[in-house]
Amino acid sequence: MSQPIPSHHHPVIALMTDFGQGDGDVGVMKGVIAGIAPDAHIIDITHHVAPQNVASGAWILASAYRYFPKNTVFVCVVDPGVGSARGAIAVHAGEWFFVGPDNGLFSYIYSEQAVHAAVLLTNPTYHLPHVSSTFHGRDIFAPVGAYLARGLARTFHELGTPVDPTTLQRLEFGSTSRRGTGIDAHIVHVDNFGNLITSIPLTIVPDLFTAPQVRVVFPKESLVIEERRRFFAGGPNDGQPFIYGDSSGYVGIAIRNGNAAKTLGVGSGATITLEMTGK
Amino acid sequence: MSQPIPSHHHPVIALMTDFGQGDGDVGVMKGVIAGIAPDAHIIDITHHVAPQNVASGAWILASAYRYFPKNTVFVCVVDPGVGSARGAIAVHAGEWFFVGPDNGLFSYIYSEQAVHAAVLLTNPTYHLPHVSSTFHGRDIFAPVGAYLARGLARTFHELGTPVDPTTLQRLEFGSTSRRGTGIDAHIVHVDNFGNLITSIPLTIVPDLFTAPQVRVVFPKESLVIEERRRFFAGGPNDGQPFIYGDSSGYVGIAIRNGNAAKTLGVGSGATITLEMTGK
Amino acid sequence: MSQPIPSHHHPVIALMTDFGQGDGDVGVMKGVIAGIAPDAHIIDITHHVAPQNVASGAWILASAYRYFPKNTVFVCVVDPGVGSARGAIAVHAGEWFFVGPDNGLFSYIYSEQAVHAAVLLTNPTYHLPHVSSTFHGRDIFAPVGAYLARGLARTFHELGTPVDPTTLQRLEFGSTSRRGTGIDAHIVHVDNFGNLITSIPLTIVPDLFTAPQVRVVFPKESLVIEERRRFFAGGPNDGQPFIYGDSSGYVGIAIRNGNAAKTLGVGSGATITLEMTGK
Repeated sequence: MSQPIPSHHHPVIALMTDFGQGDGDVGVMKGVIAGIAPDAHIIDITHHVAPQNVASGAWILASAYRYFPKNTVFVCVVDPGVGSARGAIAVHAGEWFFVGPDNGLFSYIYSEQAVHAAVLLTNPTYHLPHVSSTFHGRDIFAPVGAYLARGLARTFHELGTPVDPTTLQRLEFGSTSRRGTGIDAHIVHVDNFGNLITSIPLTIVPDLFTAPQVRVVFPKESLVIEERRRFFAGGPNDGQPFIYGDSSGYVGIAIRNGNAAKTLGVGSGATITLEMTGK
Repeated sequence: MSQPIPSHHHPVIALMTDFGQGDGDVGVMKGVIAGIAPDAHIIDITHHVAPQNVASGAWILASAYRYFPKNTVFVCVVDPGVGSARGAIAVHAGEWFFVGPDNGLFSYIYSEQAVHAAVLLTNPTYHLPHVSSTFHGRDIFAPVGAYLARGLARTFHELGTPVDPTTLQRLEFGSTSRRGTGIDAHIVHVDNFGNLITSIPLTIVPDLFTAPQVRVVFPKESLVIEERRRFFAGGPNDGQPFIYGDSSGYVGIAIRNGNAAKTLGVGSGATITLEMTGK
Repeated sequence: MSQPIPSHHHPVIALMTDFGQGDGDVGVMKGVIAGIAPDAHIIDITHHVAPQNVASGAWILASAYRYFPKNTVFVCVVDPGVGSARGAIAVHAGEWFFVGPDNGLFSYIYSEQAVHAAVLLTNPTYHLPHVSSTFHGRDIFAPVGAYLARGLARTFHELGTPVDPTTLQRLEFGSTSRRGTGIDAHIVHVDNFGNLITSIPLTIVPDLFTAPQVRVVFPKESLVIEERRRFFAGGPNDGQPFIYGDSSGYVGIAIRNGNAAKTLGVGSGATITLEMTGK
């Protein structure tokens, strides 16, 4: 039952938080890591998750983790419950390790990867000597991530009490599945260009570009989008929105050289239906 | 009187500026550092100090430096006087080194740590060949920090002319001390969540959670806050602000799942009084 | 004709994009790099180039690249044409390597440095196994940059098909040259402090501070600026704008402790004339 710990020359620690970059908080986490694991490479995923928005953080992590090397330790902090009874966990899933609050932030990981083991971070040996009630990113998650990456804990389970992975907190993100010709879904993310990313995996719509007709309907906004394009520069020049396959692996909606979210007045959470006919 | 210089495999250089991240200026400083000290790990504290706000930069540095490893070199640039007669300095204080303008940016360091030595950066050997009048971060502070971190200057004093540490510029931040039951203080920082951080160190109010009554009064805003909570998720659900102990080591004011600064209409500099009764 | 590839212990990869830092896209590119070139130091120039603004990205890169070490690999992605027929290229120019779209982003490099060789990135060996139509930063440019930095491609030309450097895309940025006493130019960049950076290189106005009179005229805004200062703290205290020599190597316009762009209501692209008399 003991889990091996990564031990290699340049371990990678990836950070994701909702701290922003205006305070020194992210820098402090990196200072703590540098003191424990001086050889680690620290990579920022983002620190601009919408404050306290666990669902948004979960999605951003899901779009990113696969591209990181084996044994990367992800230290993720979107943690409105910090200091309360919510658990602090480390999870070994797929080829990676995940450290953060047990509040659903790793929901997509649990769905997409085999979860080999999980522990509650109850062993204070791997925390800072003084643990505050409001900044576990600094006091628990950063040092645990650094010890894990450095391979100083001989086994994963030294970090604390093993927990049954099936009991970990999961977000209900309304499974998006295809029923006949319609898919009920929603907007999960607006990217830096204003592109709208839907909850529809490209894997369930292999005929996105071959079906005779495809429509995305925003019922609340009385909006229907029918154009389809394979890349942005192929989009219409007249500012009309179009459907495309986003690089995150989900169906997206964009406007060429424009900002679809602003132009359409639609944001995260908006309800949509994707209708496909002819196949 | 000669000071040893850190010389270790992976020196850490921490950067703090008010340059933002929209220009290439921070990247340029890192390029300069990488050319001189290729093994250095460069960590950003923040580059979003309010432009030219030395007091705000000083506070953010104060909340962060203790968490960095021994011998970290802090290169800090909030420097409205760049190019004028203001001094450029390196300071060895506590277990760390600080490089930047002599304008008060290191005031908290001088208060909190033993200052072992300070030098004016007058030796051009450790600057870029051409020094501009407007970007000492690139031309002086980054290269000096890199040489210092790499251990290429045999002694700290090779960097320039020794100066008496007692003559260094200090901000007057109105010492916050307890007189009887009242503490006159102010808001020093608004963090990414809109939490208001006061100038009151938790060390002078050990009875913050045990005194029968504690009130934070904003006289100008006719505002009184009496709730106290140990962590955010313990806060009232009704949007009422509460007093808590911030992880920076100072008394803070927050609203659960909300933004206290926006809701209360209060920002940095606001005057407050903390009143404690019953002890 | 075969080009040597950098092969050194700590290669430097510098990134510049218009992705912002709110999504995980930049982190994903770094994850890809870390998997291929674990020893590389990754440095951000900026990820806040105005979305899809190739000219702005070109200028920011131009102001930065000289300060990076020899053999730095610049991976630059401002790429509105991603997925279309626009070429993907690597260029060896001066002492550096540049990887990105062939859309003019490297125009200043071609003007300022000897271009030793260029290749179209047509060899899929150095791409990710699956290349999307919308995120070549992740699928092509990051891995190519990492292989190049690590020295795994034995020759630069293994990356793809050699191209004649004179055929690479270049922006027309209207050469700014001096004709008698007047220079027709424009604003190329607004920096974090609101300083206006012009397209006038300091090298063509060596008499900027010695000519009896210098005027910057904004014809459209009916605005004339005549004050000149060598550094910011030497500027007028009354909020008047002044002309100075920016650290980027271009003439700039600033307001002491103020924001010239906001105060004057002028931004990138504004037309100006610099008039010098008496010499």
